[in-house]
Amino acid sequence: MRRLSSPEPVLPLRHSQQADRRSRWLTELAELIAFPSISAQPQHRKDVRACADWLARHLAEIGLQHVQVLAGMNGGHPSVYGDWLQAPGKLTLLLYGHYDVQPVDPLSQWRSPPFKATIVGENLYARGASDDKGQLFIHLKAVESYLRTTGKLPLNIKVWLEGEEEINSPNLSAFLDREASRLQANAVLVSDTEMLGVNKPSIIYGLRGNISCELEVRGPKHDLHSGRYGGAVLNPLQALSEMVAGLHDRQNRIAVPGFYRQVRNLPPTDRQAIRCCSKRDKQILTDLDLPRGWGETGYSLFERMTIRPALTINGLAGGSVGSGSKAVIPDRGIAQISLRLVPDQTPQEIAQLLQQHIAATTHPAIRSRLKITGGSPPVLLPRNSPVMQAAQRSVHQTWGVLPCFTRSGGSIPLVAQLHRRLQVPIVLLGFGLPDDDIHAPNEKMNLSNFFRGIETIIRFFGEYGA
Amino acid sequence: MRRLSSPEPVLPLRHSQQADRRSRWLTELAELIAFPSISAQPQHRKDVRACADWLARHLAEIGLQHVQVLAGMNGGHPSVYGDWLQAPGKLTLLLYGHYDVQPVDPLSQWRSPPFKATIVGENLYARGASDDKGQLFIHLKAVESYLRTTGKLPLNIKVWLEGEEEINSPNLSAFLDREASRLQANAVLVSDTEMLGVNKPSIIYGLRGNISCELEVRGPKHDLHSGRYGGAVLNPLQALSEMVAGLHDRQNRIAVPGFYRQVRNLPPTDRQAIRCCSKRDKQILTDLDLPRGWGETGYSLFERMTIRPALTINGLAGGSVGSGSKAVIPDRGIAQISLRLVPDQTPQEIAQLLQQHIAATTHPAIRSRLKITGGSPPVLLPRNSPVMQAAQRSVHQTWGVLPCFTRSGGSIPLVAQLHRRLQVPIVLLGFGLPDDDIHAPNEKMNLSNFFRGIETIIRFFGEYGA
Repeated sequence: MRRLSSPEPVLPLRHSQQADRRSRWLTELAELIAFPSISAQPQHRKDVRACADWLARHLAEIGLQHVQVLAGMNGGHPSVYGDWLQAPGKLTLLLYGHYDVQPVDPLSQWRSPPFKATIVGENLYARGASDDKGQLFIHLKAVESYLRTTGKLPLNIKVWLEGEEEINSPNLSAFLDREASRLQANAVLVSDTEMLGVNKPSIIYGLRGNISCELEVRGPKHDLHSGRYGGAVLNPLQALSEMVAGLHDRQNRIAVPGFYRQVRNLPPTDRQAIRCCSKRDKQILTDLDLPRGWGETGYSLFERMTIRPALTINGLAGGSVGSGSKAVIPDRGIAQISLRLVPDQTPQEIAQLLQQHIAATTHPAIRSRLKITGGSPPVLLPRNSPVMQAAQRSVHQTWGVLPCFTRSGGSIPLVAQLHRRLQVPIVLLGFGLPDDDIHAPNEKMNLSNFFRGIETIIRFFGEYGA
Repeated sequence: MRRLSSPEPVLPLRHSQQADRRSRWLTELAELIAFPSISAQPQHRKDVRACADWLARHLAEIGLQHVQVLAGMNGGHPSVYGDWLQAPGKLTLLLYGHYDVQPVDPLSQWRSPPFKATIVGENLYARGASDDKGQLFIHLKAVESYLRTTGKLPLNIKVWLEGEEEINSPNLSAFLDREASRLQANAVLVSDTEMLGVNKPSIIYGLRGNISCELEVRGPKHDLHSGRYGGAVLNPLQALSEMVAGLHDRQNRIAVPGFYRQVRNLPPTDRQAIRCCSKRDKQILTDLDLPRGWGETGYSLFERMTIRPALTINGLAGGSVGSGSKAVIPDRGIAQISLRLVPDQTPQEIAQLLQQHIAATTHPAIRSRLKITGGSPPVLLPRNSPVMQAAQRSVHQTWGVLPCFTRSGGSIPLVAQLHRRLQVPIVLLGFGLPDDDIHAPNEKMNLSNFFRGIETIIRFFGEYGA
């Protein structure tokens, strides 16, 4: 691991003080992680709320004001808010993070309990360690460090911690209707992304959009004995398999007519720039421990993951499998499907094309229903705003290298909406690593990145506030 | 409902006596049904055993001798045995039934608790009501009636009640190795099939064979975030869907090369005979409440269900669906598959063809594994044996019509093995109805059929023993 030789510690402390402080930070982070705040699972509703309450107390403890738990819209999960607005005439920065996390199944594949922060070597393992409890905590510890050391901040700060990011922020629009003025700021900082690799910090300027949907196929009114009726009744699971298989063509392109119509083809120079800052196919496959890639011909794996759209079957269910399985033609089958969109596709248009395609490929002997459960447009953020430049400088000072401007394959629905609603620049400066296994078992956060992230954000406050 | 005018009651009772007796029979049947003896689910192991113990006590109560619970082979579920061999010089009839039942999911679709016998109108609803607790009880009540009324039976009887039929009798071969001499008889009677309709009794002379298997497809070592990697990694669920879709061709024929090689094409006269005794397409669709059928062109729905082979996807699983679903490329997907075979296909040959086909259609970016979990050959039984004739006469005397000789789409692995091992004729005379919903929610037994079944078997004892 490369070590920086030059940069001064931002807020100098004696070594023992620093060790004490870091140890306390990790203890606090472990408390935050211990809440199983899984927004997608109704049985964890109370845990999500308890996590919000804990965060509200914590915001007050570190010196933020006007702290409150803001009720979720439409019965959704709450947000947590706090601010420090004692720098009149200075810019105001909104810090965004989300405290809800992904489900943990398959639980059997976790090497340590998902909600017990477990340090092994350089890493802290837990659900949310990287996405996004660990990263929102980087913001909070930067604020705390500044306030404890100097008694003030070099700019005005608002903190907003969301509780519905992992379910695609379904109530965000209504929330922003109500809270837009409270959240108004000159720029937004989001740390919910990853670097390109160890010591390869990056600022994300492009995110894919997404659509999530559920395809249900129904056949007989109830399960039928497959011995008796097998061969004479269309099996919904077979029809579903055929429909799912038909969503891609032989070139691994998405087979929905019109799907690529609005996809912006990047000029060679842009693709060249992306290539410079991205992993090679071989490295990606090595990292994933996969023998080979897959996808649309004519594009690198990184390009397929970022500048090209994708359609993924996230789940299949129907009938039963395993030792307790039944000899039936089941009455229905379900596929959970998500799509990733790129400029200039819109969720509305793609959802419509998808509905048409499903209707057109539904066998007359069965019924199908495509339920769109969420959607968010792709985002491109300008790279030349003052806040982007400040972020670049603070990364350079802390890491000794300039950050790459790159694109991510993921979606942060909030970013698209916030960009449109608040009309301010947004900086996506995250400290995750590609092997953090977010959304998967054994999610982790690299502790060195965690501490260096805090340093970076402390510097960013100074650079942007100056 | 047509009423018989001529046949004398076999064993005359006063009306009140008969009502009392019938009421007691149903109370006893409800006790038998109350055991959730689901052989496929390990958590019900004790229930299966408790059900066997109850049956052993019951066999002794109705007057059978040498009653015992025979341990299952290879740790499998036990059988129950009892006999009455006090008719020297007379023929010996083996009565076969199975007391294990199918799983009950989806539980939410049951209108009454599956293990609480519930009478509504002419029907008794419960798991096992028709398949096969209700039908094995027909045998037992016929034996009991004879012994209580006359103190003896007109022939020697052996009763064998199996506990692993619904899991394809995996230990049957080993069991018969041990128990062949105990079970030796001149003929076997099995009531585990259905009639063609109300007042349309039938004797099944052909059964389809089967193969059950599980296809597992594995991709990445663990779930991957579908935002980040979607488009660049082959999704096991997509690969699985494509493989499953590829198991049938566009003519709805099974696309496994060589699959139809051993299928015996019936001469037109045989097909004509089957057509006479079978339901028309329209009737089948009306009964199933389906808008249209499906399957191999050139064959009626009944033919597709009986004399033609079939491949059914019984279950699909992978990733997650529904409100708690995750945005992942899951690490694996599973399809539960069963095939129905017809003469002269063999499970061994078809399993091999299937393995080859799966290997040939597995995408190089993933791994697949096809696990064969069971298999049984198709069966054709001679229609002209004395025991078949006796069965025909007893049906005619009881129902006023001759039974149809017909074929069933289902599989009774036992019948194939028993036929080969004991080298004796087997009569498949069942009293279920096509709408009994066996293997499905709200399974039922028609009570009129139940009581008339008992009459039929009483007469059959006389006809065959005479």
